[in-house]
Formats: sequence, structure tokens, C-alpha cells
Amino acid sequence: MNLNKKSLEDLARLVQGECIGQSNLVIQGLASLEAASVHNISFVTDEKYLDKALASKAGALIVTQALQEKLYSHQNFILVQNPYLAFAILTHVFEKKHTDVGIESTAQIHPSAIISDSAYIGHYVVIGENCVVGDNTVIQPHVRIDDAVEIGKDGFIDSHVTLTGACKIGDRVRIHANTVIGGEGFGFAPYQGKWHRIAQLGSVQIGNDVRIGSNCSVDRGALDDTILEHGVKIDNLVQIAHNVKIGENTAIAAKSGIAGSTTIGKNCILAGGCGVVGHISIADNVTITGMSMVTNNIYEAGSYSGGTGLFETPQWKRTVVRLRQLADVPLTQLVKRLDHMQTQIESLESTFKLRK
Amino acid sequence: MNLNKKSLEDLARLVQGECIGQSNLVIQGLASLEAASVHNISFVTDEKYLDKALASKAGALIVTQALQEKLYSHQNFILVQNPYLAFAILTHVFEKKHTDVGIESTAQIHPSAIISDSAYIGHYVVIGENCVVGDNTVIQPHVRIDDAVEIGKDGFIDSHVTLTGACKIGDRVRIHANTVIGGEGFGFAPYQGKWHRIAQLGSVQIGNDVRIGSNCSVDRGALDDTILEHGVKIDNLVQIAHNVKIGENTAIAAKSGIAGSTTIGKNCILAGGCGVVGHISIADNVTITGMSMVTNNIYEAGSYSGGTGLFETPQWKRTVVRLRQLADVPLTQLVKRLDHMQTQIESLESTFKLRK
Amino acid sequence: MNLNKKSLEDLARLVQGECIGQSNLVIQGLASLEAASVHNISFVTDEKYLDKALASKAGALIVTQALQEKLYSHQNFILVQNPYLAFAILTHVFEKKHTDVGIESTAQIHPSAIISDSAYIGHYVVIGENCVVGDNTVIQPHVRIDDAVEIGKDGFIDSHVTLTGACKIGDRVRIHANTVIGGEGFGFAPYQGKWHRIAQLGSVQIGNDVRIGSNCSVDRGALDDTILEHGVKIDNLVQIAHNVKIGENTAIAAKSGIAGSTTIGKNCILAGGCGVVGHISIADNVTITGMSMVTNNIYEAGSYSGGTGLFETPQWKRTVVRLRQLADVPLTQLVKRLDHMQTQIESLESTFKLRK
Repeated sequence: MNLNKKSLEDLARLVQGECIGQSNLVIQGLASLEAASVHNISFVTDEKYLDKALASKAGALIVTQALQEKLYSHQNFILVQNPYLAFAILTHVFEKKHTDVGIESTAQIHPSAIISDSAYIGHYVVIGENCVVGDNTVIQPHVRIDDAVEIGKDGFIDSHVTLTGACKIGDRVRIHANTVIGGEGFGFAPYQGKWHRIAQLGSVQIGNDVRIGSNCSVDRGALDDTILEHGVKIDNLVQIAHNVKIGENTAIAAKSGIAGSTTIGKNCILAGGCGVVGHISIADNVTITGMSMVTNNIYEAGSYSGGTGLFETPQWKRTVVRLRQLADVPLTQLVKRLDHMQTQIESLESTFKLRK
Repeated sequence: MNLNKKSLEDLARLVQGECIGQSNLVIQGLASLEAASVHNISFVTDEKYLDKALASKAGALIVTQALQEKLYSHQNFILVQNPYLAFAILTHVFEKKHTDVGIESTAQIHPSAIISDSAYIGHYVVIGENCVVGDNTVIQPHVRIDDAVEIGKDGFIDSHVTLTGACKIGDRVRIHANTVIGGEGFGFAPYQGKWHRIAQLGSVQIGNDVRIGSNCSVDRGALDDTILEHGVKIDNLVQIAHNVKIGENTAIAAKSGIAGSTTIGKNCILAGGCGVVGHISIADNVTITGMSMVTNNIYEAGSYSGGTGLFETPQWKRTVVRLRQLADVPLTQLVKRLDHMQTQIESLESTFKLRK
Repeated sequence: MNLNKKSLEDLARLVQGECIGQSNLVIQGLASLEAASVHNISFVTDEKYLDKALASKAGALIVTQALQEKLYSHQNFILVQNPYLAFAILTHVFEKKHTDVGIESTAQIHPSAIISDSAYIGHYVVIGENCVVGDNTVIQPHVRIDDAVEIGKDGFIDSHVTLTGACKIGDRVRIHANTVIGGEGFGFAPYQGKWHRIAQLGSVQIGNDVRIGSNCSVDRGALDDTILEHGVKIDNLVQIAHNVKIGENTAIAAKSGIAGSTTIGKNCILAGGCGVVGHISIADNVTITGMSMVTNNIYEAGSYSGGTGLFETPQWKRTVVRLRQLADVPLTQLVKRLDHMQTQIESLESTFKLRK
């Protein structure tokens, strides 16, 4: 489907790699080792894929020198130190680019909004007062940009995204379909048995190079702003509550949620389905494994986990019965008592033997 | 509200059941046992609902022969072997059908798109290059169909759905509101402390008779495609990551998430809130109970579970304290030591008695 | 950004508080203690914020009398009994209000729909047959209101919301962006290895003063209705399945999910990421802490919890190993055996001593 064609030599140059074999080989696309045809280039990142690589019909392979020496069934290579990075770079060559520029006739744009001439505004986009859309930014159909929202340059906002709460979005930001940025935070004052709404007056600040997946909710702050620093990467269906602050280059996988006023450091990784309670801090370089719940501050870099793992259901049911007893079983004391009794028994035995 | 009327006899014929009682009784709708009026038909699936059924004001009941004999307070029945299936069939009789055909004047459709004459395209739908919409398929208002997306016949796509990534959708597929199919997968190559975006070049293939709920995210593959086979049923707010493959007739309940490159077999059931890590395989006929996390391959059909169950909070706090000690308590060794000490004590006792 | 200005005296009157200091001080906005300038008013709810309050540059503070006495660095106050409630009230003063009224030219409204003259209908809104929109209700751009949906007065429906399934929505209801109300419930009758769709004929009833966040899914009932009573507050990314009933003033935090036909009482709180299985009942005044799963009826008010807490990953791995052994370790019996053996040892020891 993709009509971009490149010679092996050209591709090697793009990734600063060494071209081995037929330098003018025409490559029509990237493919996995299994699916690749002779017109495709594929990549090998590890010795464990050697069998697949040897059997692959790919016309060329991106590999390290060490891997290349074992791939005797192939002739055409691009040699690099980091094949996965080279693959990542080449995906951009074969990606279908959005090339339209300008404002579709059906877009509704408030006269006070400033739209770059090189931006694209799709059909039925609605843009409010005092908004800004920067150079080369693509706004897909049906996006709603509410008053006072600003978007930097080279951005991509997919269909049905709602940008509200006067959020400010940096450069090279990608926001995928149906995500909501700047929605009202969940804030209520309880009084006399009812919840009294706290109108949310803060906003959302999104740095450069941030990526947010589809169906995410990033709420505006109550008074101060919710902040996503440069390079933050967020997967789908993620909840970022009001006044959360996420540090540079932190990555958050799908279905995770961060409760209000929590601060997450730089270079953290939250795997899928994690939850972080409100009003805590997580240090830099922390990894949280899947479906874990963070209930307290984390001061030290490192990896943290929770959850029980998976059981066959009958064994799980028996395990849960034991878990319900666990609170009343003094585990560490149990071991001490055992040690103590062992000593008593040994003492009895030796005394007994002595007296035999 | 529903103006469809049918005689009891007609309904019996539709479910291949036996009509007992007043065959020309006019039925105006289906209702639960509690809410039914004399103009409604209800159904009984199990003896445990006998009391409710006896008290019900329903004009007629769908039952098995065994149940009918106990329902002396009623005269009108449809006898079937599977009342729940008969109920499922009859819901379609009383459902309000979408009958409009054609393209609303406000829809924006690329000239290269092929739209069946019997399809319906709602207001403000935007359809890109080279798309296909099959016979009788209903596209509700505000749907975005991006370039190269193909949808089969008899489909239903609800409002604010985003179809992108050149996804291919089979026949009789229902996709509910605000779901995103074909969004970009979450793929980055880490290098020198930053995340380098991997443009996603694969697509999504959705088989026939697939159902996807509202607010779901099904990502396109990185190189190969994400695949949902025929008959897959997905609830709301579900995440399907890039290159996942889900086998025929597997059902996934709300708020579950499947991480990248994982394969799930046929006829599996994932209850609500489950998570499955990436790059694993789950066999056919596997059931995962609610909020469990699957972290390894599952080779055997069967039911699997995780989680702690629910505690009163004070007991839970004490349980968590014990859990934190558990790693340092050699549980199975403890039992062995106890057995061993018991033997020692018994030996001491018997020796002692012998010597008395 | 906010141009509302009020004197300290005016603000005090709005919260029925006592104005202390410069009564004609002009306040331009609310701010957090850290971010406040001399033109802002801030608030203090607890002694633990005294240091921050003393250092704050806020022009005035909302406090209790007890707190005011310790805030010697400040001169201007509003004295109230409940500063947090007063803050909540004042957020509405400084909130940017939606003031447009009328129907944008691009809205598509079926002639049978009844729209109040004081309502606002945004661009590209699509409203079906027999819908009702009440006084002062604001419908933001791109909202889809399907046939027979009714919305009361003073409501706010944000962009890309889908209202379908003939749902009925009360007064003063706020529904945030990209949420779906009335989508089809997940109902299938299994038969001969396939899932047979049950068309969903029930609807959704939403009471007054309900608030629903962004990206939520509230499904219509199968036969009877899904019901959210007055004052229910729901955060983002929450799943409410068909035929769920949620009692007055219950609050549900982000990423929670309630499975079908479950009833939750009044004044309950579900923290983030909770799951509740189907067909159960939860009493009034129940709190469920974060990421807990409710698998059975809860008859008593109180707080309930589940989950393991968080571990450093190496310790967690060892803990999970122990958990897998737990089913086969008779915990309570272990303690009894220890007690019994202790008695045996003591008996041996004393007998032994006697015979010395």
C-alpha cells in the first residue's frame, strides 16, 4: 500500500549504518521477519530471533555486526549498533504523511483565533476565542478546540479530541483520537450530606514532544495547573487527574490512572493498569509493574510491584481463604516460636541422651 | 414507546416454540418479570425466579415445559428449550430499527470512496480517500472514517467513532460510540534517555460479527496487523494494543486491557478489568475472572484468577502487614519443620514412657 | 485571565463570613497558597498548612477563627466555619461562564425536538426525533443527541458526548466531553458456541445534580432502565453497565467499573480503579478503597479494601512465590499445632525435671 521506495544505500545513510550487499536494492517497505517479502527490509534485535531471521524472506536486514555474521542465509544488510533504533527511524520513511495544508470550508473558527498558514484544520473542526494553532500542526476532522487553547508547531491532533480548559500545548505534540485535555477536575466539597462542586479554575500545560494516546482524560487543575513536562509519553485510556505533575520523559502505559495533586518524577515507567493515589510524590527513575497500586510516596529509584499473580481458579479460591486468615497469624513470631521449640526439643534430647 | 405489536402465536413461531393459552394475545413488548404489564411477555430461565414469575403481571411467559408446570398463576406461555435464547431472539422484534438510507447532505465524502446505495451516512460524517462502506451499513453522525478504511455490510457504527489506520472491518460488525479503531500503537525506541517514536505501519483487521463497545481503543499494528477474528465481543473501555490477536468468539468485558503482541485463543472469556501483559499466548477456552492480571503464557483451557478479594479495611490493613512479612517466612518448610518436630516430640515421649 | 473582580467584603458576604481587614480590597481571583499574588485570595483548611499560609503572598485568606489567630503575617481574612466549602462557593464567582444562548446555524435539529429558547446548541450538534432540551442548558459543539433523549434545565453537555438509548436526564446535570450515555449494554445469549446479541430495550435515567466525567460509558438497560439517582458524582473513564442502579449522592472515582444489574446504595464512595461484579447489592454509606474488587453483597456500612499494597519488585517476587504456597499451608491449624506442641514440650520438660 505504501508507495515510498528507497534503495538499501539510501536507507543505510538515514540510519548512519553500513550498507552490505546490493546497495541499489529497492526497498518498498518495512516488515516483520515473518511477513517480509523480498521487497521489504526487516530487523533483528537479538540472538533469540536468529531462527526467524534465517527463515525470513526479507530482501535485507538491519542488524549488528555480531548478528550479521550468523545470518549466512542473507546477503543484504544494514549494519548498525542499535537495530531497534534504526528500525524506529526508518518507520518514518515509510509512514504515510499528512500533506494537506489550510482550513477546510466547514471548519468554524472564531475570528480572534490565530491559525498558522501552514497548519491544517479539518472538516467540522470548531475553534473558539483566542486560540492559537502553530506551524505545520494538523487538526483532524471533528476536533473541538475551546476558548484560549494554544497549540504549538508540528503537532498532530486526531479526530474527536476535545481541548478545553484553556490548555497550553507545546511543539511536536501528538494527541490521538477521542482524548479530552482540560476537562473539569473531580472536585467537590462535602457539606451536609451533599457534594458541592468546586469550579476548576486551573489549566493544563503540556510540554514539547508529548504524546497522548486515544480515549485519555487529562483534567485541568483546580487552581494551579496540571503539568505534563517535555517528552512525556502516554498510552490509551489513561486518567490524569487535576493538578498532577508528570516529569520529563516519563512513560505511562494504557489504562493507568493518576489521582489528584500527585507528582511523578522524570524517566519513570508505569506499566499498564497501574493506579497512583492522590497527593503523593514518586521519585525519578521509578518503574511500576503492571496493575500495581501506589499508595505512598516513593523516595528511591527502582522497580516496584503489587498484585497476587495468577492462579488456577480452584487454587486461587483456597488461597483467598488463607489470605482471610492471614491477619490473625503472627507469621514472623511463628518462625521464632519454631526456632525456640526446636532448641527446647534438642535440649531435651541431649539431656535425655546424657542420662541414658 | 415501542409500537411493534405481535400475537403470542407469531412470537412463538419466531422462536420455534409452542404457544400455550390465548394464541391471539397481543404482545406490545418484552419486560422483566417485575416490570411487566398484561401487554408484555417476560421470561423465566431458572427455578430460582419462580416466586417472581408467579407474582408477575406479565401477559405471557417464555419458559421450559418443566417451569410451566409450576407457574399455575399464569395461562399464556411460549414453551422452548432455552428461554434465554428465545428472549434474545425476541429482543430484535421489539428493537427500534434504523430505517434511514442514503447520505445526509452534510456528510463529507472523498470522491474516491465507495458507499453502498443501501448504506446510511449520517450528518457531519467525514470519509476519506479509498474508503468502502458496504450494503445496509449505518454510519451515525460525526463518525470519522479515515483514508483506506473498509467496512462490510450490515454494520452499525455509532457517533464519534474514529476509524483510522486503514483498518478493514467485516460484515455485521457493531462499533459503539466514541470508540477508536486503528489509532497509533504505543511504540518507542528508548535511546539516550529519550523515547523515539516508531511510526505504526500495520493496520487492524476485524472479522465478521464482531461487536466493540463504547470508548474502546484498538490500536493498529507496528508492522503486521492487529487482528480480531470473527465473532469477538468486546465491552466498553477496553484497550487492545498493537499486534494483539484475538481468536473467534472470545468475549472481553469492560475495562480490560491486552498489551502488545499478545495472542488470545478462541472462545475465551475475560471478565471485567483484566489485564494481559504483552508478548504472551493464551490457549483456547480460557476464562479469566475479574480484575486478574495474566503475566505468563496459559497453555491449558480452564479458569484462572488473581487478586485478594475484599476485606473490611482494618482487617485488610493487618493482612497487608502480614503480606509484607510473607516473603521471609518459609511456609512449606514451616510445615515440614512442624512435622519433624512432632516426630521428635513423639519419639521423646515414647522413649520416656518406655523408660518409666 | 479572569476579569471578575470583587471586594473582600463582597466575597465575605457570598460565603456568609466575617470580613477582617481592608474590606474594599479588590480580589481578582482565587489561587493556591503557593501561587497567590497580592490580588488573590487563598484558603487554609488545616493547621498543617500554616507554614505555607504564613509564607503566602495572598492578599487575603479564607480561614477559621482558630487559624486566623496564628496567621500573624496576614491582615486580610474572611472568617468562616468551613473554609473549604467557602472556597468551593467562591470558585463559581471566578469561573468563566458560558453566556451564549440560541442555536448555532450548523446544528441539525429534528423538527419534532423541543429546544428551550434559553438553551445553547453549539456548532455541528445533531439532535434527533422527539428530543427535549431544557432551559439554560448548554450543549457544546459536536454533541450527538439521539432520538427520544430528554435533558432538563441548567445542564451542561460538553463536546463529543453521545446521548442515545432514549436516556432521560434531570436538571443541573453536567456531562463532560466524550462520554457516552445510553450505549448498548453488553448482553449476549450463548448458544452452540456463539454469542447471540440481546438487543437492549431499556434506557438510562439520570436524576438531578448528577455529574459525569469525560470518557465514561453508561449503558442502557436490557429491559428495565439503568438508574443514577440525584446527586451522583462520577469521575472520568468510569463504566456503568446495563441495569446498574446507583443511589443518591454516591461518588465514584476515575477508572471504576460497575458490572450489570448491581445496586449501589446512597452516599457511598468508590475510590479510583474499583470494580464491582454484577448482580450484587452494596448498602448505603459504604466506602471502597482504591483498586478494590467487590465480589459479594455488602450489607453493612463501613470501609472495605482489597489488594496487596506495593513492594519493591524483588521482594514482591518472593512474596508471590509464598502466595502460591499459601493454599497448601493450613495457617490457623499451624498455630494450633504449635500451641499443642509447646504444651507437649513443657509437659516433657516438667516430667523430666520431676524425675531428675
